[in-house]
Amino acid sequence: MIDVLFLPEPVSQQHVCVVVDVLRATSTIVTALANGARCVVPVRKIAEAKKRKAENILICGERKGIKPKGFDLGNSPIEYFTVKDKEVILTTTNGTRAISMINSQKLYAACFLNLHAVIEQLRNHDHVTIVCSGQKGKIAYEDVLCAGAIVYELNDKLTDGARISRELWKQSRRKDLSKLLFESQHAQELAEYGFSSDITFCSQTDLYSIVPVFVEDRFIKQAP
Amino acid sequence: MIDVLFLPEPVSQQHVCVVVDVLRATSTIVTALANGARCVVPVRKIAEAKKRKAENILICGERKGIKPKGFDLGNSPIEYFTVKDKEVILTTTNGTRAISMINSQKLYAACFLNLHAVIEQLRNHDHVTIVCSGQKGKIAYEDVLCAGAIVYELNDKLTDGARISRELWKQSRRKDLSKLLFESQHAQELAEYGFSSDITFCSQTDLYSIVPVFVEDRFIKQAP
Repeated sequence: MIDVLFLPEPVSQQHVCVVVDVLRATSTIVTALANGARCVVPVRKIAEAKKRKAENILICGERKGIKPKGFDLGNSPIEYFTVKDKEVILTTTNGTRAISMINSQKLYAACFLNLHAVIEQLRNHDHVTIVCSGQKGKIAYEDVLCAGAIVYELNDKLTDGARISRELWKQSRRKDLSKLLFESQHAQELAEYGFSSDITFCSQTDLYSIVPVFVEDRFIKQAP
Repeated sequence: MIDVLFLPEPVSQQHVCVVVDVLRATSTIVTALANGARCVVPVRKIAEAKKRKAENILICGERKGIKPKGFDLGNSPIEYFTVKDKEVILTTTNGTRAISMINSQKLYAACFLNLHAVIEQLRNHDHVTIVCSGQKGKIAYEDVLCAGAIVYELNDKLTDGARISRELWKQSRRKDLSKLLFESQHAQELAEYGFSSDITFCSQTDLYSIVPVFVEDRFIKQAP
């Protein structure tokens, strides 16, 4: 059975969860790990992130889209090409909040950048819950679309939420993904803040073949 | 701007809300009013309903799909063809809960049975929030589909939630509505309880041309 939660809610399960925050937390996590970061540690608060500052540790994230004062990097995935061997501490508005609500046996991070790598990973599992991060408590189109792209490839029994996301993907999958994403409410906000290139970057499908898996308090690259 | 909430949440707004519970509360409300019921009063609790029992008042609703002991009618819309001049007190699991969470200037009830009557009503309004009742806290396919059918006909700016529901309708609208509804999780449960004919009934589009509007504590027929 595959379920899709359109908004984060407390999840406590024995089975597998996948967190999706296309714009931009999971895209950033995937990009960082694909570019050699040792790990990405999601934290809820800015102060919590700052406390961890040390050599080879980057303090990263955003509030209202913008890099907080004193941080090394923001939440633009395109800032994460030169993070080899670094530990990334990441605090964001929606994605890290969603992650903090999930307590499951296994947790993966997905976005369009690693779409088929995640799909292949999920083929081994019977019960999957995909959690869309949303934006400030509202449904985010791009997250549900990405969830639908995952569901579409898996031949499992679907909840109504999973079915809706799959139908959304079926309706959209032959269209220009970047154009679809640019029409989302969150993308329009990001574009206003000057982050248009992030949206273009995040709408690339299968740029990376890694799957972030959550171990203890951090995402690391799932062993191939 | 049109918004669609896929699950009920507290809504307090100056503008117009529409509550949708295709299976079955809003279908029942529409059917009752179309067949001459004076009003439908949604209440949360069984005891609250029972207290109101009197001449020309019908105590109606369901728990786990079934008519509670001592009630006059269940929550099958097809029980509501002979309710002329009656006051209907209705308590259901999902629909009346959703209604109780909405505090808006205007509240209409929608389902497929009165789809285009509701759409015509909404053409006069700039800001509309459609609240899907869901089922036991989970997204209900049939409610989101009905919301999408409404959104599809209105040329307004859409939130991401509204956009997703519209895409769902676009993907599905040429298909057999009854077949689509029968595949929903809630329909499958209702069918197991022996309510298959309700699902067939509720999948009729535009059987009625009335719009229930909420006044004080009850739904009445919106004046034409």
